[in-house]
Amino acid sequence: MKISIVKIGGNVIDDPQKLDEFLYLFARLEGKKILVHGGGVMASKFGERLGIQPNMVDGRRITDAETLDVVTMVYGGLINKKIVAKLQALEQNALGVTGADGNLIRSAKRPVKDIDYGFVGDVKEVDTELLDTLLEKDIIPVVSAITHDKKGNLLNTNADTIASEIATSMAVKNTVRLYFCFNKAGVLIDENNDDSVVTKINEDIYDELKKDKVIHSGMIPKLDNAFSALDKGVSNVWLGKAENLVLAAKGKKSGTNIEKHRYDLY
Amino acid sequence: MKISIVKIGGNVIDDPQKLDEFLYLFARLEGKKILVHGGGVMASKFGERLGIQPNMVDGRRITDAETLDVVTMVYGGLINKKIVAKLQALEQNALGVTGADGNLIRSAKRPVKDIDYGFVGDVKEVDTELLDTLLEKDIIPVVSAITHDKKGNLLNTNADTIASEIATSMAVKNTVRLYFCFNKAGVLIDENNDDSVVTKINEDIYDELKKDKVIHSGMIPKLDNAFSALDKGVSNVWLGKAENLVLAAKGKKSGTNIEKHRYDLY
Repeated sequence: MKISIVKIGGNVIDDPQKLDEFLYLFARLEGKKILVHGGGVMASKFGERLGIQPNMVDGRRITDAETLDVVTMVYGGLINKKIVAKLQALEQNALGVTGADGNLIRSAKRPVKDIDYGFVGDVKEVDTELLDTLLEKDIIPVVSAITHDKKGNLLNTNADTIASEIATSMAVKNTVRLYFCFNKAGVLIDENNDDSVVTKINEDIYDELKKDKVIHSGMIPKLDNAFSALDKGVSNVWLGKAENLVLAAKGKKSGTNIEKHRYDLY
Repeated sequence: MKISIVKIGGNVIDDPQKLDEFLYLFARLEGKKILVHGGGVMASKFGERLGIQPNMVDGRRITDAETLDVVTMVYGGLINKKIVAKLQALEQNALGVTGADGNLIRSAKRPVKDIDYGFVGDVKEVDTELLDTLLEKDIIPVVSAITHDKKGNLLNTNADTIASEIATSMAVKNTVRLYFCFNKAGVLIDENNDDSVVTKINEDIYDELKKDKVIHSGMIPKLDNAFSALDKGVSNVWLGKAENLVLAAKGKKSGTNIEKHRYDLY
């Protein structure tokens, strides 16, 4: 079957009006679908209110035991259940899960090398059985960015990675399209100009744009993630703003379509 | 099919060692099963740390918008996902849900009469389809005490009530046994002596014990709930300590068995 996997980030989740608008569009997306979300800013805010100081090393958050509890509460509880309740009101039969539920995503605590990231999990295995069961019953899985190690521990895991891993696992038996919604209109030639979107990109163009420093810093892991998903069988990956999701799904020009082979472009 | 529905309360949830011991026993419970939990004390603690003052009227908690967020985080996120991860480590394929997930429990905000309880939901409908699907796939639903109104709002709902409502709804097509685990060994003749358990109770005995003031205050809604579940088709209701769950399931003498008819006693 055809499955759309949509990842939304903090810029949508942290703004109740944007979230409502996005969910309305997501509800209009036809066919089988899965929603993946993180929720960084809200977790930091609750952490601060609880007196837990964010511990950042080289710009990356260290997840100690207290921070893991906050992330579990905010991602797995507050954000996930609010999204589910709102989708239910839109007649979308959603069900919220973490990677622990139904043993969906098993991960391993990241080994300590130079930095101890704490309770952060690197994905080891996606068990698609639960997703198959839910999608078959027209239930929409809403996945928060928490995994488990099957030894009783929850682990904090990057939401982009979770979306990619679910997409590649589901791509074994299905036609999967992966949508990354973020705060830019797509891959931009001028990062301050949303009109400068690169509408299609393949590995050759990606290499050139990296060489010319048009694509740099945070966009590189995002795109590496996207090309890795294509390598592993995902049909199409899209990058753009949440409000353009339905346009993109209908094949209308919006955001950046990431395609593996040059011949896909013509 | 035969289904065991087990409700645990704060005395188990708030003590990590007791929770581990309980989950080990729950894992040994044979056949299809559903776990229902609340988690009051932990929610109050987090609320206090967030600077949210508990608002009690006549001993009952008022759920304002901020308190609902805390309850959603703590019940639906922290407690629910910790239980699921621990069960997964025990090779129990658990999946955590609220009443919003899969539209499991629709409720209505309690009408304001003398007291405005805030975001508290009275159960209107249990849709057993999700539970049927999960149990059929040998997945164990772990239900936290949150419901939704199908209009986009989450609502705080009593966990005993949720357990009873799920039990009576599942009893339409199944043989259901309902276990209420709490901080006493059962219905006690002397409330300070766990050895004074009334091992079997029916409505006649219940009426007598109420008249003699042996059963009073908090036990009355619990038992009313239990008899109501029996009235609506639940086969058996048990009240006792979490550590006696497996003994009770094997029919060994422990806790209080609640039975509708006098002839069940002989």
